[in-house]
Amino acid sequence: MGKNKAYLNCLQRDEAQALWRKRLSDSGYFEGLPAEPLPVTAALGRVTARTVYARQSVPHYNGSAMDGIAVYAPDTYGAQETAPERLTLLPAGAPFAPGGCYMVDTGDAMPDGTNAVIMIEDVHIAEGKAEIIAAAAPWQHVRIIGEDIVAGELVIPEHHVIAPVDIAALLAAGLDTVAVIKKPKVAVIPTGDEIVATRAELQPGAILDVNSHMLAAAVTEWGGEAVRKTIVSDRREAIQQAVVESLAESDMVIINAGTSAGREDYTAQVLSAIGEVLVHGVAIKPGKPVVLSLCQGKPVIGLPGYPVSAMLTAELFVRDVLLARQKLPPQAPPQMEAALAKTVASTIGMEEYVRVSIGDVQGRWIAAPLSRGAGMMSSLTKAQGIIRVDRGSAGLPAGLVLPVTLLRKHRPARTILAVGSHDLALELLGLFLRRRLDNISLSCANVGSMGGIMAIRNKEAHIAGIHLLDEPSGCYNIPFVKKYLPDRKGGLVHLAMREQGLIVRPGNPKGITGFGDLARPDLAYINRQRGSGTRMLLDYELNKAGIPAAAITGYDKEVGTHMAVAASVASGTVDTGLGVRASALALGLDFIPVAQEQYDLLLNFLPDDDCQPAIIDILQSAEFRREVESLGGYDLRDAGRVIPL
Amino acid sequence: MGKNKAYLNCLQRDEAQALWRKRLSDSGYFEGLPAEPLPVTAALGRVTARTVYARQSVPHYNGSAMDGIAVYAPDTYGAQETAPERLTLLPAGAPFAPGGCYMVDTGDAMPDGTNAVIMIEDVHIAEGKAEIIAAAAPWQHVRIIGEDIVAGELVIPEHHVIAPVDIAALLAAGLDTVAVIKKPKVAVIPTGDEIVATRAELQPGAILDVNSHMLAAAVTEWGGEAVRKTIVSDRREAIQQAVVESLAESDMVIINAGTSAGREDYTAQVLSAIGEVLVHGVAIKPGKPVVLSLCQGKPVIGLPGYPVSAMLTAELFVRDVLLARQKLPPQAPPQMEAALAKTVASTIGMEEYVRVSIGDVQGRWIAAPLSRGAGMMSSLTKAQGIIRVDRGSAGLPAGLVLPVTLLRKHRPARTILAVGSHDLALELLGLFLRRRLDNISLSCANVGSMGGIMAIRNKEAHIAGIHLLDEPSGCYNIPFVKKYLPDRKGGLVHLAMREQGLIVRPGNPKGITGFGDLARPDLAYINRQRGSGTRMLLDYELNKAGIPAAAITGYDKEVGTHMAVAASVASGTVDTGLGVRASALALGLDFIPVAQEQYDLLLNFLPDDDCQPAIIDILQSAEFRREVESLGGYDLRDAGRVIPL
Repeated sequence: MGKNKAYLNCLQRDEAQALWRKRLSDSGYFEGLPAEPLPVTAALGRVTARTVYARQSVPHYNGSAMDGIAVYAPDTYGAQETAPERLTLLPAGAPFAPGGCYMVDTGDAMPDGTNAVIMIEDVHIAEGKAEIIAAAAPWQHVRIIGEDIVAGELVIPEHHVIAPVDIAALLAAGLDTVAVIKKPKVAVIPTGDEIVATRAELQPGAILDVNSHMLAAAVTEWGGEAVRKTIVSDRREAIQQAVVESLAESDMVIINAGTSAGREDYTAQVLSAIGEVLVHGVAIKPGKPVVLSLCQGKPVIGLPGYPVSAMLTAELFVRDVLLARQKLPPQAPPQMEAALAKTVASTIGMEEYVRVSIGDVQGRWIAAPLSRGAGMMSSLTKAQGIIRVDRGSAGLPAGLVLPVTLLRKHRPARTILAVGSHDLALELLGLFLRRRLDNISLSCANVGSMGGIMAIRNKEAHIAGIHLLDEPSGCYNIPFVKKYLPDRKGGLVHLAMREQGLIVRPGNPKGITGFGDLARPDLAYINRQRGSGTRMLLDYELNKAGIPAAAITGYDKEVGTHMAVAASVASGTVDTGLGVRASALALGLDFIPVAQEQYDLLLNFLPDDDCQPAIIDILQSAEFRREVESLGGYDLRDAGRVIPL
Repeated sequence: MGKNKAYLNCLQRDEAQALWRKRLSDSGYFEGLPAEPLPVTAALGRVTARTVYARQSVPHYNGSAMDGIAVYAPDTYGAQETAPERLTLLPAGAPFAPGGCYMVDTGDAMPDGTNAVIMIEDVHIAEGKAEIIAAAAPWQHVRIIGEDIVAGELVIPEHHVIAPVDIAALLAAGLDTVAVIKKPKVAVIPTGDEIVATRAELQPGAILDVNSHMLAAAVTEWGGEAVRKTIVSDRREAIQQAVVESLAESDMVIINAGTSAGREDYTAQVLSAIGEVLVHGVAIKPGKPVVLSLCQGKPVIGLPGYPVSAMLTAELFVRDVLLARQKLPPQAPPQMEAALAKTVASTIGMEEYVRVSIGDVQGRWIAAPLSRGAGMMSSLTKAQGIIRVDRGSAGLPAGLVLPVTLLRKHRPARTILAVGSHDLALELLGLFLRRRLDNISLSCANVGSMGGIMAIRNKEAHIAGIHLLDEPSGCYNIPFVKKYLPDRKGGLVHLAMREQGLIVRPGNPKGITGFGDLARPDLAYINRQRGSGTRMLLDYELNKAGIPAAAITGYDKEVGTHMAVAASVASGTVDTGLGVRASALALGLDFIPVAQEQYDLLLNFLPDDDCQPAIIDILQSAEFRREVESLGGYDLRDAGRVIPL
């Protein structure tokens, strides 16, 4: 618990990258790389260590380039239409005699004595003779030796990534093995007393080591050979020993976690003892506690422990170094422009990176920011792109068009952005949609029903799931659409009637029966966020029952999804919360129904988009209804009905 | 030698692709794909077969999100700066008592009884007490269970390519294995009596099987599992048996060669017998004889035998089918615009594909067409892009700006286009340049000295190697630069004085002594192309000696490089040709020096380009001089001298 918050130095990202690259370069890390011979047939994707010269010419013999007859050109001089020449057909293998010729197919070796080919179409063959009506120039229709590649010529330059066509050329040019740059070996050392290797050891307070697997996979993608080491405890000597051992057998060492200055932080100390720490702390968010060092002429990198931070800093400080160590150019992932779906706040002085989903909403590319916590693994899996907020900026306004760096090699052709209230049925809709339309995906951002309506109004989403109860009319959704989207004439489609209820621990140990119990002093409640339909339902019911919000312990603790409510109850930290039955069922909890509410979808597609009819069709299908109803607490008898506005 | 030139049908490329895709799709080939379970840690790059739901919430416990003290929030109500609250520090593991608190680090499990964290910065610790000056809200600075991923939620959708971050999320969400789509198994069957498997069998007329290795590597790159079969002879029954056997164990079968209608062509016949031939012949060049068939519900494809044709047709008819079979989107290789360096002739009615080098010449992207023969493997290895000539076009004019599809994943950042006279010293210059400047490559197009001057004039090359003898003045190069590039004030740099001589077989069996012998009737000569410096030198010398060109057998047989001249001599098909000593040495031939000529470089870089000084510096370096002179026949004492214009 040493609370020393000071980083050795805290550089800007670009300064850190430049210093890092320069010092590695100065140390000769990118020169004189070790090579290994490989069979050409096993060298796909590898990088040549040296220029490769042909050992054999291609073609390796003079061959006919046509089907026809092989002749000695001077024998044909004088042949013309009015005075055809007749050559004697010699059997294959017979010695050449003046005035003779041989039948040849494309690719056949030219028989000794011949030096030209006449196409079969221009020859009349009869009675063992070939009649020709034009002279042949020497070497016509002959592929001469070395026409393609000459022995001694360069076949492939050094530092060239071997593609399938290169394998063919190398083999044809007489090479069976090729010297390639050895894959750089990268040791990945997970550290931390709280980190465990197996699920069996996973007690509260323990964290499964997933980062070392993620980083090893990234190293593999970047052409390195990753070696995952066993987990090292938060002891200085243990970490030092692990680094020293890894240095002996690796070209690069990554230490994960233990880099924050605010906790058991031995990484920087250890690396200062073994080598030179060049950078400790970079003004980026997430990822600040990164440590970059040079030990025994090799890079040793301390990456932060949170997965989002670890991945980002690996992309910034590991990837290009690893590529350069293979003589590969830095990766320049493709970029595109998109409009920000919502305002992104940022800290001046820190360069911030925010992961986003990207979708084309009515012809405009929208980047929807995902959860920003450094521990949010879901933001890593859902992200299709990443945006950077410059260090001079206090944030980016919604609607700003900005460059998005794309993260996935295989990006779905279309992403449907679903923004609004969360429901498991939406995930199932995504699944059915993928089966119906090629190459599509559904990305859900859970911002509550009102957030969904606003996203539709700003043309920042394709779908909003809403369940908003209008208190005066007791009517769901329509009054809100009419109020906030007055010009809208369609696109509201019913999905389900669903039960809302109080989620309680199995057996309902606290004997909760309904809203009336929520003010009991022995109960802890977990709430949903403002603007969500569930929150509105609660407020409506509390109002009806005359219960003040302040009387409920936990009213001000908000979570963003039904499942998070259920998880809070399951953990025992709260006694109850309002949510749908499906989320209670998923975690084996009990459920006290208190209301049935109308969950509808607001759709936002161009008239000719095939997505809207597909969605309605899916909602009306028996398969979809069956699958959603099997989650429990849903009534889909009217699913897919278009609600008049 | 069956000369049936008729293809079953000959479709346009787009028609063929659409029919092919539709019939495969209709047959259900892209649905219900076989899956296999894999350890998550071994699933990098694989495609999920099904949607994956979380088995475990992330985080799996309520944990502190800060370093600080864990408290029961109601105990803190009332704390303020003027009236601090003092809580009792309880040792870890001790039961909670009202008014107590625990020290916690980020990530620690919240002790039972606590429900909020106060940051250490806001706490004053003394004498076993923690003094706080503000109330804590319930759940503040706590990462609650399921905040990131809730058990039961979607982690990764189906048909998703697993990236490093997905591996982390899957593991964290409680999954150790994941169902992925099986890699499609693709059998590659090489066929042909002339095809041999090993270099030892490589007699004239025999061709080494390089295509099956190239196609297997391409299949691997496209995510398939390639199985190379043994070479099958040109017998119908043998081919049929190989296809039937392969079908039983594969998801796709590729037969290579034997698809032209003009030779031993059993592929189409065999496939008609086993299944249905959908396409035989596509109006593309190269690649026309492709056969597409559906046998036992699986695609069986006959690809042409020439490597360039085989690769192109694999890209057109194998790649996207293989990707779709893994539920991956079609590949859309990046494109760029470039101006054509020279006119490309084309046949109306055929869609033609031409491979190109690409370089930025003075701010203008230039695409330089490479040799177009279907057998030219060097065009495959040198190509950085490919252009398409529409079937309605008779050709494309030089200078036309057109889209170029890029072929290499790792493209050098800069390509220097060297167009002109060929010399081995240029390849060495390229090598030195790569060592000097990061991420650069040199692409040589051998079009002779005059072609080089024209390319510089049209701003279609960076470098032209020239050795042009002006007959009246007896002076090299300068008169030609003055004539064709009258405005040019610099950029002519001396490379070497080099010997030209007559290349003859070892021991000079025909007793050749000089130009005077060339008209001897017992000698066959091989010439260089018009516009080359070597050709000019020959003509100059013949003229001086009064020998008419027509008196020389082979005067009209032209080849494009010194090495091709040497190779012709080495093969015994000619007796001599004019060329540089280095090329004779490379093939172990004898060399009769007849002249020394001046080989210079014409450079064409913008004034601020770092390439021109780098080249001059390399030419002047001792290392470069030593290496070129060691080739034999070069004198580099003045290399790098800038020649005044």
